[in-house]
Amino acid sequence: SNETAEGIESISAEENEVAVITPHKDLNQLPVAPEIERDGDDVFVKMTAQITDIEIDKDYNYKAWTFNGEAPGPVIVVNEGDTIHYTLENLDPAIPHSMDFHAVHTAPDTGFADVAPNEEGTFVYQANSPGVFMYHCGTDPVLSHIANGMHGVIIVKPADGYPTDDEIDREFVIIQNEWYKYNDLNDMTNNEPSQVVFSSKALNEEDQPNTDGTVGALIDEPLQTKVGEKVRFYLANMGPNEFSSFHVIGTILDDVYIDGHPYNHNKGMQTVGLPASGGAVIEFTLKEEGQYKFVTHQFNHVQKGAAGKIIVEGE
Amino acid sequence: SNETAEGIESISAEENEVAVITPHKDLNQLPVAPEIERDGDDVFVKMTAQITDIEIDKDYNYKAWTFNGEAPGPVIVVNEGDTIHYTLENLDPAIPHSMDFHAVHTAPDTGFADVAPNEEGTFVYQANSPGVFMYHCGTDPVLSHIANGMHGVIIVKPADGYPTDDEIDREFVIIQNEWYKYNDLNDMTNNEPSQVVFSSKALNEEDQPNTDGTVGALIDEPLQTKVGEKVRFYLANMGPNEFSSFHVIGTILDDVYIDGHPYNHNKGMQTVGLPASGGAVIEFTLKEEGQYKFVTHQFNHVQKGAAGKIIVEGE
Amino acid sequence: SNETAEGIESISAEENEVAVITPHKDLNQLPVAPEIERDGDDVFVKMTAQITDIEIDKDYNYKAWTFNGEAPGPVIVVNEGDTIHYTLENLDPAIPHSMDFHAVHTAPDTGFADVAPNEEGTFVYQANSPGVFMYHCGTDPVLSHIANGMHGVIIVKPADGYPTDDEIDREFVIIQNEWYKYNDLNDMTNNEPSQVVFSSKALNEEDQPNTDGTVGALIDEPLQTKVGEKVRFYLANMGPNEFSSFHVIGTILDDVYIDGHPYNHNKGMQTVGLPASGGAVIEFTLKEEGQYKFVTHQFNHVQKGAAGKIIVEGE
Ligand SMILES: [Cu+2]
Ligand SMILES: [Cu+2]
Ligand SMILES: [Cu+2]
Ligand SMILES: [Cu+2]
Ligand SMILES: [Cu+2]
Ligand SMILES: [Cu+2]
Ligand code: NA
Ligand code: NA
Ligand code: NA
Ligand code: NA
Ligand code: NA
Ligand code: NA
Ligand SMILES: [Zn+2]
Ligand SMILES: [Zn+2]
Ligand SMILES: [Zn+2]
Ligand SMILES: [Zn+2]
Ligand SMILES: [Zn+2]
Ligand SMILES: [Zn+2]
Ligand SMILES: [Zn+2]
Ligand SMILES: [Zn+2]
Ligand SMILES: [Zn+2]
Repeated sequence: SNETAEGIESISAEENEVAVITPHKDLNQLPVAPEIERDGDDVFVKMTAQITDIEIDKDYNYKAWTFNGEAPGPVIVVNEGDTIHYTLENLDPAIPHSMDFHAVHTAPDTGFADVAPNEEGTFVYQANSPGVFMYHCGTDPVLSHIANGMHGVIIVKPADGYPTDDEIDREFVIIQNEWYKYNDLNDMTNNEPSQVVFSSKALNEEDQPNTDGTVGALIDEPLQTKVGEKVRFYLANMGPNEFSSFHVIGTILDDVYIDGHPYNHNKGMQTVGLPASGGAVIEFTLKEEGQYKFVTHQFNHVQKGAAGKIIVEGE
Repeated sequence: SNETAEGIESISAEENEVAVITPHKDLNQLPVAPEIERDGDDVFVKMTAQITDIEIDKDYNYKAWTFNGEAPGPVIVVNEGDTIHYTLENLDPAIPHSMDFHAVHTAPDTGFADVAPNEEGTFVYQANSPGVFMYHCGTDPVLSHIANGMHGVIIVKPADGYPTDDEIDREFVIIQNEWYKYNDLNDMTNNEPSQVVFSSKALNEEDQPNTDGTVGALIDEPLQTKVGEKVRFYLANMGPNEFSSFHVIGTILDDVYIDGHPYNHNKGMQTVGLPASGGAVIEFTLKEEGQYKFVTHQFNHVQKGAAGKIIVEGE
Repeated sequence: SNETAEGIESISAEENEVAVITPHKDLNQLPVAPEIERDGDDVFVKMTAQITDIEIDKDYNYKAWTFNGEAPGPVIVVNEGDTIHYTLENLDPAIPHSMDFHAVHTAPDTGFADVAPNEEGTFVYQANSPGVFMYHCGTDPVLSHIANGMHGVIIVKPADGYPTDDEIDREFVIIQNEWYKYNDLNDMTNNEPSQVVFSSKALNEEDQPNTDGTVGALIDEPLQTKVGEKVRFYLANMGPNEFSSFHVIGTILDDVYIDGHPYNHNKGMQTVGLPASGGAVIEFTLKEEGQYKFVTHQFNHVQKGAAGKIIVEGE
C-alpha cells in the first residue's frame, strides 16, 4: 500500500460539488483515444478536450479537465523536421480549450487559438527543435486549465539522436504534476499543492505502465527493468507552480540532457532541477536486483504523493 | 486591459500609512536621471537613492525605495575590462542605502558601504567578468531594501562577444521582481508575494519601453519586433525570494547563456530557470505575425502579474 | 552578534516536550567520532545514528536525530574508484535509521536497509562517480529523518581532478539545511522552514570551522582566507524542501561544477541554483581585505539565518 499521502487534507464531496461548473455536473466523458498517423514527414494528430473523472487519490474523484480523458494527456512523439497537422476536438459543452505545444513556433493568438465548445480546430506546426516539451491548454486563466488537468508531454526526437542512444535498453516517460482544491483558482494561486504526483505514459514498450497523475500510481504499478540495463527517462515537470528536484534513489544520473536537447549534456548528476514546464532526458543504470524509488527530493512533496518505484530483476 | 492580477488582495490606504516610515510621509521625490559618462575604459556612473511613488498596480501607489526613482532601477551597461567610478547620492533623508553590484570584485564592508542620508559615496570597481548581473541596495535588512524596490541590472558586455552576436536583430532588458505588503518585513519573510511582475529597461533602441515593475506594464506597453528577427533578452530575476521559470509562448529559446556568460551556452530550451538573483541571455525567433506573451511558467505568479507581451509585425 | 534571525517565531519548551518521542526524553548522547580508515582502495567508514541536543538558535535546543551527534553529519571524503565498507551503529533506542548515500549504486531495499535500534548494519558500496553528494537517513518518513537532522555530505574526488585544481589555495565544505517545528511532520510537510542555516565541515585544514547547521554558526565563527587566494567550496543543499540560490557577496563564481562533476563546468556565475539535494563545486577569489558574506539570495531565508561570513586578510 502507498504510504506517501497519509494525512493529506481531503476535500469533502460538498465542497467539490460547489466548484464543479454547472454544465460539467453529471458529465464524465469516456476517454477518447488520440489519433496519430504519419505520412512521410507529415504527422496527423487528433486529440480531444473532455471532462473525465480521475481518482487522483484513494476515493477522491477529481472531475478533471483533460486531453483525451487522461491527466497528464497522452504522450505525442514526433521527429525533428516533422510537420504536425493538429486537430483539437473540444467535447466540453461549457468552455473553450486550446493547445499550446512548447515544441513549436507559432503565433499564439492564432496557432494556439481557443476552440469553442463542441467545435474543432486544426493547426499546422513545424517541429524543428529536439527535446522533451510540455504541452498544455492555453486558455485563460491558464492556471485553472493546467491545474485542472490539461497538460502533457510532446517529444521531438533529435535528427542526429543523442550521443548515448546506443547504450539505452529501456525508455519511460515520467511526468510530475500538482493538484489543488477542485477548480479553485484562489487555492491554485495562493496555496501549496494538495497532491504532487508522478505518472508514466506508454511509449514504445507494451508492458510499461500508462497512468494518470495520481497518488501512488507508480508505486502500485511500478516500472520494470533488469540489472545493468541503461534506462532513459523522458522527464517533464508540468507544475503548474512548483520546481522539481528529481532524484532516483540508489543510482546516479550518468547522462542528463536539459530540456532533452542533445547539446545540453551534463554527466554524473545526483538530482536534476526542473523549473515549472522544464524537461530533461536522464539516463542511469540500476546495478543490483531490488526496488528503487524515485522522488522529487523536496520531501514535503513526497509526503503529498511524489514517489514512484522501479522493480529491477536479475538478467 | 490586464486581467492577470484580478482578485489579488490589496492593501488599504490605512495599512500602508502605518508602514511608511515617518520621514517618508509626504515625500515623493521626482526621478533623477542617472549620469553615465565614458572616458576610455573608465566609466563614471552617478545614481541616486530616493523615495518615489510607483503605481505598482491599478490605483495602488507604493512609496518605493528606489534607485533614481525607478523600480527596478536604470540598466547600467559597461564593457568587460572597464573601471567603474560609481557615485551614489542618497537623497533619502531617513536611512542609509548602498550599492551591491554582482558584477564586481570588492570587499563589501568597504566597497558596498552604507551611504548616510543626504550624503554621497564614491567607489571604484573593476568589471572583469561578462554577464547579466543583478545590483541592489545592500543595507540591512537587505530583504526590506530589495523588496521595497532597490534593485536592477548591470550588463557587462563580453570582450569577445557572444558566438551568436551576428544573428541578433533586436535586444531587450527584461526583469522579474516581486512586491509584498508595504515595507512589511514580516510579510516579506513569511508570506508569498502579492505581485510578481516584469519590466523592461531601455537599452540601445529608442522605441522600446522603459517601465517600472508594475502589474501589466509590458501588456499595456508591449515589446515590438518583426517576423523572423532574432531577439535577445538580457534577463534577470530580482527575487527577493522566488525562483523564475521564464518562458516565451510560441517559440523555443534557441540560445541561452546562463548568467550571461558566453561559456555557459545551452540550446533549444523551452524554459530557463533563474534562481533568485540569477541572470541569462536568451535568444529566440518569432516566426509569424501576431501577439506572443512571455511568463514565468509558475502560473500562480502569472495570476499575480507575471506576464508581458511582444507584438510581431510582418517585414 | 547575529542579526539574521530576529523575530523568528520560537517554539515553547512545552510544545517541544510533546513532540519528543518518549524514549528520547532525557536522552542526549555524546557525539561519537566517525571512524574512517583506508587500506588501498578500500575505505572503512563507521558512523552512528544517535540522539543529541543541538542549539540551533540562541537558547533553542533541538533534540536532533543525528549522524555522530552532528547535524549535518561529518563529511566523508573518498576517491573515485574506492570501495566503501560502511557500518552504521544505531544508538537510538527507539526507532530504526539507515544511510542513503547519493554517491553510490545499490538496491535501496538492501543497500540502504533500516538498522534496528541498538543494532549495527554493514554495507559495501562502489564510489565510481565523482562529485559532491548528499547523504541522509532513508527511513520512512524520510522527511522527518532529514528535517530532524540526519543529513550530510560525501565527496568523491575525481580520479582526474578538476581542470582548476592547480589554482586552488583553500577549500571549505559549506552546507545549507532547514529546520522546522520539532519533529512535527505536519509542519515539515505544509509550512515554510523556521530556520535556514549554513554550516561548514572540517576538511583538510586544521583551522577551519566544523559547525552544526545553526543560526549564525558561520557569522560567529567565520571562514578565513587571504587576499587573492582562490577558494573552493564543496557546496550542498540538504533541503529537505527548499531550493537554494547560493551567492557570495563581493565576488563572482569563476568556476562552477554542477553536482561537483568535472564535466559540468560553468564559468562566471553570480549565483548557483541548487535543487533540494543538489551539490556543486564553486571557486572564486576575494581580491580585497575585508569581510564578505555569503547567502542564499532568497532573502526571506537570510532573515531566517542563511548567511555566513568570510574574513579576508592581506597577504
Ligand atoms: Cu482547457
Ligand atoms: Cu506553456
Ligand atoms: Cu536601500
Ligand atoms: Cu546580492
Ligand atoms: Cu534516521
Ligand atoms: Cu536522497
Ligand atoms: Na529552433
Ligand atoms: Na541516488
Ligand atoms: Na572574474
Ligand atoms: Na513556447
Ligand atoms: Na556512474
Ligand atoms: Na557578488
Ligand atoms: Zn483550457
Ligand atoms: Zn510551494
Ligand atoms: Zn551509474
Ligand atoms: Zn538600502
Ligand atoms: Zn513562494
Ligand atoms: Zn526557434
Ligand atoms: Zn532515520
Ligand atoms: Zn518555501
Ligand atoms: Zn573573480
